[in-house]
Amino acid sequence: MAQKDAASSSKLWGGRFAEDPDPQMRALNDSIRFDRRLYYQDITASMAYARALARAGVIQSDEADQLERGLTAVLAEFEGGLFAVAEGDEDIHTAVERRLSELVGDIAGKLHTGRSRNDQVATDLRLWLREAFATIAALVVDLQRTLIGQAEANLETIMPGYTHLQPAQPITAAHWLMSFFWMLQRDHERLAAFGHRGNLSPLGSSALAGIPYPLDRAALAADMGFDGVTRNSLDAVSDRDSVAEFLFAASLLGVHLSRLAEDVILYSNPAFGFIELPDAYSTGSSLMPQKRNADPMELARGKTGRVIGHLTGLLTTLKGLPSGYNKDLQEDKEPLFDTYDTLTTLLPVVAGMVRTMQLVPDRMRAALQPAMLATELADWLVMAKGVPFRQAHHLVGEVVRVAEEHGVSLEALSLDLYHSVSSHFDSSVYGVLDFDAAVARRTASGGTSPVAVAAQIEQARKLLPEA
Amino acid sequence: MAQKDAASSSKLWGGRFAEDPDPQMRALNDSIRFDRRLYYQDITASMAYARALARAGVIQSDEADQLERGLTAVLAEFEGGLFAVAEGDEDIHTAVERRLSELVGDIAGKLHTGRSRNDQVATDLRLWLREAFATIAALVVDLQRTLIGQAEANLETIMPGYTHLQPAQPITAAHWLMSFFWMLQRDHERLAAFGHRGNLSPLGSSALAGIPYPLDRAALAADMGFDGVTRNSLDAVSDRDSVAEFLFAASLLGVHLSRLAEDVILYSNPAFGFIELPDAYSTGSSLMPQKRNADPMELARGKTGRVIGHLTGLLTTLKGLPSGYNKDLQEDKEPLFDTYDTLTTLLPVVAGMVRTMQLVPDRMRAALQPAMLATELADWLVMAKGVPFRQAHHLVGEVVRVAEEHGVSLEALSLDLYHSVSSHFDSSVYGVLDFDAAVARRTASGGTSPVAVAAQIEQARKLLPEA
Amino acid sequence: MAQKDAASSSKLWGGRFAEDPDPQMRALNDSIRFDRRLYYQDITASMAYARALARAGVIQSDEADQLERGLTAVLAEFEGGLFAVAEGDEDIHTAVERRLSELVGDIAGKLHTGRSRNDQVATDLRLWLREAFATIAALVVDLQRTLIGQAEANLETIMPGYTHLQPAQPITAAHWLMSFFWMLQRDHERLAAFGHRGNLSPLGSSALAGIPYPLDRAALAADMGFDGVTRNSLDAVSDRDSVAEFLFAASLLGVHLSRLAEDVILYSNPAFGFIELPDAYSTGSSLMPQKRNADPMELARGKTGRVIGHLTGLLTTLKGLPSGYNKDLQEDKEPLFDTYDTLTTLLPVVAGMVRTMQLVPDRMRAALQPAMLATELADWLVMAKGVPFRQAHHLVGEVVRVAEEHGVSLEALSLDLYHSVSSHFDSSVYGVLDFDAAVARRTASGGTSPVAVAAQIEQARKLLPEA
Amino acid sequence: MAQKDAASSSKLWGGRFAEDPDPQMRALNDSIRFDRRLYYQDITASMAYARALARAGVIQSDEADQLERGLTAVLAEFEGGLFAVAEGDEDIHTAVERRLSELVGDIAGKLHTGRSRNDQVATDLRLWLREAFATIAALVVDLQRTLIGQAEANLETIMPGYTHLQPAQPITAAHWLMSFFWMLQRDHERLAAFGHRGNLSPLGSSALAGIPYPLDRAALAADMGFDGVTRNSLDAVSDRDSVAEFLFAASLLGVHLSRLAEDVILYSNPAFGFIELPDAYSTGSSLMPQKRNADPMELARGKTGRVIGHLTGLLTTLKGLPSGYNKDLQEDKEPLFDTYDTLTTLLPVVAGMVRTMQLVPDRMRAALQPAMLATELADWLVMAKGVPFRQAHHLVGEVVRVAEEHGVSLEALSLDLYHSVSSHFDSSVYGVLDFDAAVARRTASGGTSPVAVAAQIEQARKLLPEA
Repeated sequence: MAQKDAASSSKLWGGRFAEDPDPQMRALNDSIRFDRRLYYQDITASMAYARALARAGVIQSDEADQLERGLTAVLAEFEGGLFAVAEGDEDIHTAVERRLSELVGDIAGKLHTGRSRNDQVATDLRLWLREAFATIAALVVDLQRTLIGQAEANLETIMPGYTHLQPAQPITAAHWLMSFFWMLQRDHERLAAFGHRGNLSPLGSSALAGIPYPLDRAALAADMGFDGVTRNSLDAVSDRDSVAEFLFAASLLGVHLSRLAEDVILYSNPAFGFIELPDAYSTGSSLMPQKRNADPMELARGKTGRVIGHLTGLLTTLKGLPSGYNKDLQEDKEPLFDTYDTLTTLLPVVAGMVRTMQLVPDRMRAALQPAMLATELADWLVMAKGVPFRQAHHLVGEVVRVAEEHGVSLEALSLDLYHSVSSHFDSSVYGVLDFDAAVARRTASGGTSPVAVAAQIEQARKLLPEA
Repeated sequence: MAQKDAASSSKLWGGRFAEDPDPQMRALNDSIRFDRRLYYQDITASMAYARALARAGVIQSDEADQLERGLTAVLAEFEGGLFAVAEGDEDIHTAVERRLSELVGDIAGKLHTGRSRNDQVATDLRLWLREAFATIAALVVDLQRTLIGQAEANLETIMPGYTHLQPAQPITAAHWLMSFFWMLQRDHERLAAFGHRGNLSPLGSSALAGIPYPLDRAALAADMGFDGVTRNSLDAVSDRDSVAEFLFAASLLGVHLSRLAEDVILYSNPAFGFIELPDAYSTGSSLMPQKRNADPMELARGKTGRVIGHLTGLLTTLKGLPSGYNKDLQEDKEPLFDTYDTLTTLLPVVAGMVRTMQLVPDRMRAALQPAMLATELADWLVMAKGVPFRQAHHLVGEVVRVAEEHGVSLEALSLDLYHSVSSHFDSSVYGVLDFDAAVARRTASGGTSPVAVAAQIEQARKLLPEA
Repeated sequence: MAQKDAASSSKLWGGRFAEDPDPQMRALNDSIRFDRRLYYQDITASMAYARALARAGVIQSDEADQLERGLTAVLAEFEGGLFAVAEGDEDIHTAVERRLSELVGDIAGKLHTGRSRNDQVATDLRLWLREAFATIAALVVDLQRTLIGQAEANLETIMPGYTHLQPAQPITAAHWLMSFFWMLQRDHERLAAFGHRGNLSPLGSSALAGIPYPLDRAALAADMGFDGVTRNSLDAVSDRDSVAEFLFAASLLGVHLSRLAEDVILYSNPAFGFIELPDAYSTGSSLMPQKRNADPMELARGKTGRVIGHLTGLLTTLKGLPSGYNKDLQEDKEPLFDTYDTLTTLLPVVAGMVRTMQLVPDRMRAALQPAMLATELADWLVMAKGVPFRQAHHLVGEVVRVAEEHGVSLEALSLDLYHSVSSHFDSSVYGVLDFDAAVARRTASGGTSPVAVAAQIEQARKLLPEA
Repeated sequence: MAQKDAASSSKLWGGRFAEDPDPQMRALNDSIRFDRRLYYQDITASMAYARALARAGVIQSDEADQLERGLTAVLAEFEGGLFAVAEGDEDIHTAVERRLSELVGDIAGKLHTGRSRNDQVATDLRLWLREAFATIAALVVDLQRTLIGQAEANLETIMPGYTHLQPAQPITAAHWLMSFFWMLQRDHERLAAFGHRGNLSPLGSSALAGIPYPLDRAALAADMGFDGVTRNSLDAVSDRDSVAEFLFAASLLGVHLSRLAEDVILYSNPAFGFIELPDAYSTGSSLMPQKRNADPMELARGKTGRVIGHLTGLLTTLKGLPSGYNKDLQEDKEPLFDTYDTLTTLLPVVAGMVRTMQLVPDRMRAALQPAMLATELADWLVMAKGVPFRQAHHLVGEVVRVAEEHGVSLEALSLDLYHSVSSHFDSSVYGVLDFDAAVARRTASGGTSPVAVAAQIEQARKLLPEA
């Protein structure tokens, strides 16, 4: 078993341990390999903390200055890629304090006064999340703008709208594109709301019981850009709600991206041929030279599983934990960072794909089928002939069946055959059977007509921040 | 294979089908057994829709009155337990319209004009969710009040605070109880925010493309108590974000309840003995007559898994769906209803348990260990002796080790042995080793001292609605 | 608070409780509403237990007979739908024993000797699971047979094979259908293996510590059809591995069904038109009379989310439980039963759909594109001309590009243009460009040629039990 | 947008693309950063493939030798840490072939004949999984041995057994320890069974349709140590069942470890004091010098959430994919590798903890309560007095209540008071109230008596492979 050595006695908590930790235990336990990513938050929060200690009279003002200068130097080492993790550095907090003490000497030992790694990591994480929410929201906005761009270019393009993936009614391509705008708008609002909700400072909660020094937590929070302070120290050190909120917002965003992806994958299959994939965002095959695959869209769909998995994993980890900090909470960071990286990698590529994919209006129009106008016939029976809708629907169902039996489409069905179903039908029925007219009729708010979609786009633009 | 018969031709969509659905397919497909729960929402939304059709001139005003009277009668049948589901009733929408047509005749066929089951179910669901969010939030508030009640009764009760489930520092029982208040406060705010976010009317989206009749969707939305309308019909018919939000809010609420449960289960084990379980909220054993088990708390913990499972399931179902309505979306209701039922059953019982459980201050105090004052010693070295915290922490670590080696507690350790660690120690060290003083020292906002907790409770009260 | 009354003092564990359980607590706690489903297992296991008690000399042989006759009567009441749940019946075990004591008097009180509800429910559940594994496996086999049937009818039908949902190479429809056979074969083997693995009797584990009576657990296990006994009583009462295995096997089966579903949904879209949906397994629209939707396939896909959710939920519930039975384990049954019901409802409908759907060979062939023969060209360069594959692949890539630039397909590209890419090409190239030949070439085991697929089907048949 | 350059034209599929991939798309798409981990499997499978191509006469025998020598050199570069990933290396397959062609020239281009990255990666993954299943199983066995070791040392140690975390009956510590042995035995058997089930070779499936060259797939499979070949090429290239099985086996293993962890965490809390944590496997606090935390156990519990998340994520990713390979499948590797790393890091530390933790028999015995013998009283009434169990249970319940009312324990309750409950009680009742006797009585198979546990251990030893 490991002998206690100098390296480990530098550990923050080694004081009373007679024996060193097992090396495999250390490898399991240490978090520096992933939490070093919090260096900026850790160091700047420590600067604010040094200032707060000085304001509270716990340390001298010149001591705070010394600490802050030292921390600035440590930060510069991280930013410059020069920071070297040492043997005893368990986590980012240990590493920063160890390096600080090398730079400024014993005074470094004053920085942790009244603080615990429990409130420290909670603070770092919230600072990191604040940026993360904002960054993802901004990338979502970029994609929203791209959708608006494509929608504006396709305001009059008519394509089949599907339910159950079966052709249902004609819609405009702009309407289809904008449907994703609104999904993303909810994501964007959700990210903003969650980012705001969690913007409270846990610092000053100490390990669990609060701080025994006369620290002004509110001023410290304001110094770090928080909107306020957490209200109960025991809760604050083990609250990971914001992480769960981030993963949930990411999961739902992923669901929306996966639905866009599914459509793009389908529509770029030659049976549809509605979309031509750009070279820059598709790939080929090592075996089949003719292939052009929508890989980024497949990854958008596939990675949604990964993100949902992270959400599930975190909730499962949190479930049933006893009060206060438990080491299980260390498991919050990797799924969080991985989700962030997944989205920051994915969103620009999806935006690039949407921006550069070519819609093929001819193929879209060619996929329209007269039967998709059946609803128009029913509405015409209602409006022009006063037939109750349910009866109209039934009559049109019969018409569709008759047409199928005769192997002709609705507009090629003879008036005689129309009459065989109902005497309500007259020759004006053929005028109803027009795709553009069907689309144009849907002018009510949220409808697919070009005029309604133009209004939709105008509303949409107003909801986005200035570019 | 099934012959087409009269029953099925009453189906809303049977018009052109030559053959009846397979009975097993029907059993799989029909949703009436669970979506009948939406009857109130379905019928009242239909009433509002009839009024809107009349305002738009699509039906006559007296027709709307007839429809509304008929719907009132159908509603009364449901409320009175008299509604009989018929053979052809696939879902609540079909069932209501079928019954309506039996009561008012052919005019019932006008109600569905311009409407689809797609926007109809989306509307019903949002109406239901609006109540569900409010109901759960109110039950959370009840539990919050109960926690405040117990906290106020235990403002001065001192107990061990744990991290890693190891004794860390003394805290007040009120502080421990209030830590759950704040978790629930976030749940309560989240439920309110989500309920508000989704309160938009999809009605008028029709199947996917919007409505071709001149319906005033905004007036219709207001009539149903919505804050506004959805903006894109294609999105609106397949948007289940609010369901996901409900399940997520429930999952995080479950996580918080499971943590409270874990503590209560632990603390009522006789090794702790901090809590005596009330007869009314505990159970015995069929084999071991002496047992008293915290079953409701175990169920609170266990059911959190169930709710997290529902969230995962819904997100998985939504992932990768193509545009527009897909039948997969029918899978949204059962996890939603089950989650609602789980919480409405669970929350009052948890509140009852919290209200009636007896804290045992003597056992709590007996569990305090002098070593839990180690941090006090360190803070005293910092404040009284000017020792940098990190060095103070190390010295106290040595003291703890020396005390362990001599098999005595900190307050029984001789001054000589204190001196063997550091000359900073003097006889005033014994005065520091007091649990009440340690607690009282933590007066900063969010801390565990009675005065800080009293302030916490005051803030808490202000956040709750009037009782 | 509830007064203690007669009803509750009949509760199995009420002996020492001064106060009755809160009614809401009871509603939360009682499991009779779902665990009554275990009545057959509970009663037959009790019969076996009575016999074992008699063999051990704990009760008299005629007492065992009396108990068995009484239990037979209780079983008959359940089977006949006559069993009435009484006020104090918490769960199926309580209900059966209560009714038994009404029928046979005090001797009923001997049945629970040495037994606990902990080992009792574990036993019931394993008996139930044994049947459940077998039932689902048999339904999977039915679907496998159906796939073989369709495959045999389509051994020569050629369709596009896809990767990334892009046309890749021609395959036979039989090959496509059989790909699902093998997925299901893994499910079927998994269900059988899991059913076998868990077939051990926990009875005789008592509450946690084992039974103090000289019971022959092995004989008791054999009497109930178990393959052996569990080895550690503490483990046995809280082991729910078999439930997790069932949910996992169901999840993976769901994944496979969802993939079949996705293909059927896509291929029945008219852009593909590869499949015509049968009336008996598709539905229409309340608004759009021409629709024919593959609802059962959408539900197969959607319900996979539900089942995955149940698996996640159970694992989350089990995670972190302390040793021995905890009430959280009561949460095992509902997801299990729901998963079973989901599959027993779904599988026959999927089989019905596969059996009755019409493949449309003409549409399949029409969707083949000459570019799908690009790999054939490359393979021809390798085999006929000795070109290294990688170079061949590159040359064919150039050919595809040239053909695209000239807007012609591969078989219409002039020899001059072929030569412009490489002099290896000669007029025999046109003979390679044949879909049937491409398919026929893949005769190696597992390949798509009719001869290889016929061999595949023969292997497949051998793996299924006799019909 | 990116100009096409030399680097990218080296890509395996670049032939016909006019434009280079977007750099962000490449970053999203490339898998080399994680799939390079498969280098050993990729290279050795390529060696076997070269031999198979030669046997089939597709390449010359000396060409195969050249390829094999080149591949040996590439492998040596990987093993020696000398392999340099180049700009165009998308994945491990591309990287290896690129390097091979640098080393052996154009002949490298023959290696991919008839092969696709689809069957290649499926093969690599199965080879990797075979080792992974075996490695984890071996680590589980190590932990099982450690449990046996501790159990043997504590065969006579008596401790409270819990249900609902309430003291229930006395058990031996060996019994408690062995309960985890059996959980792990199921994991160990499951890992072995899954490893065996998936050990089939997909190589020769090509992209989806099978291989058009006369390759002997069975011989190739045997050369790689597979037990057989996959039966349908379309299935084989997208079958990820083995990955799901690995993640499921890991999840259930995690559940078991988390339960052990929960117990160790509880029992090392001083209120229990049953376990003393070893320095080598516990940690201290940066703020509270007296702390000794069971961090590895908390991580075992917490990381179970992570692994369950990976399982959920993978199943979600697989759900609803269309036939054949889809890029979504690239998402299989990271959760798999992370799960493997989690377990290989965790298991040895858990084993170290179990090996070095000190059980504290005195504290265990001190926690026994006379009420835990209530069941003994009931069994005594049954056996010595012929009272039906249910009545005995009820009488003992009364005794417990009377004892509680008089504030005395069962063995201190006067005979008069016993008589007040029932005349069955006589002075021999006091002899029953003995913890050791209660334990010793449970000799039936699987029971907690030292003799039954010794038999249990003997069975256990036989199930493990030779050390």
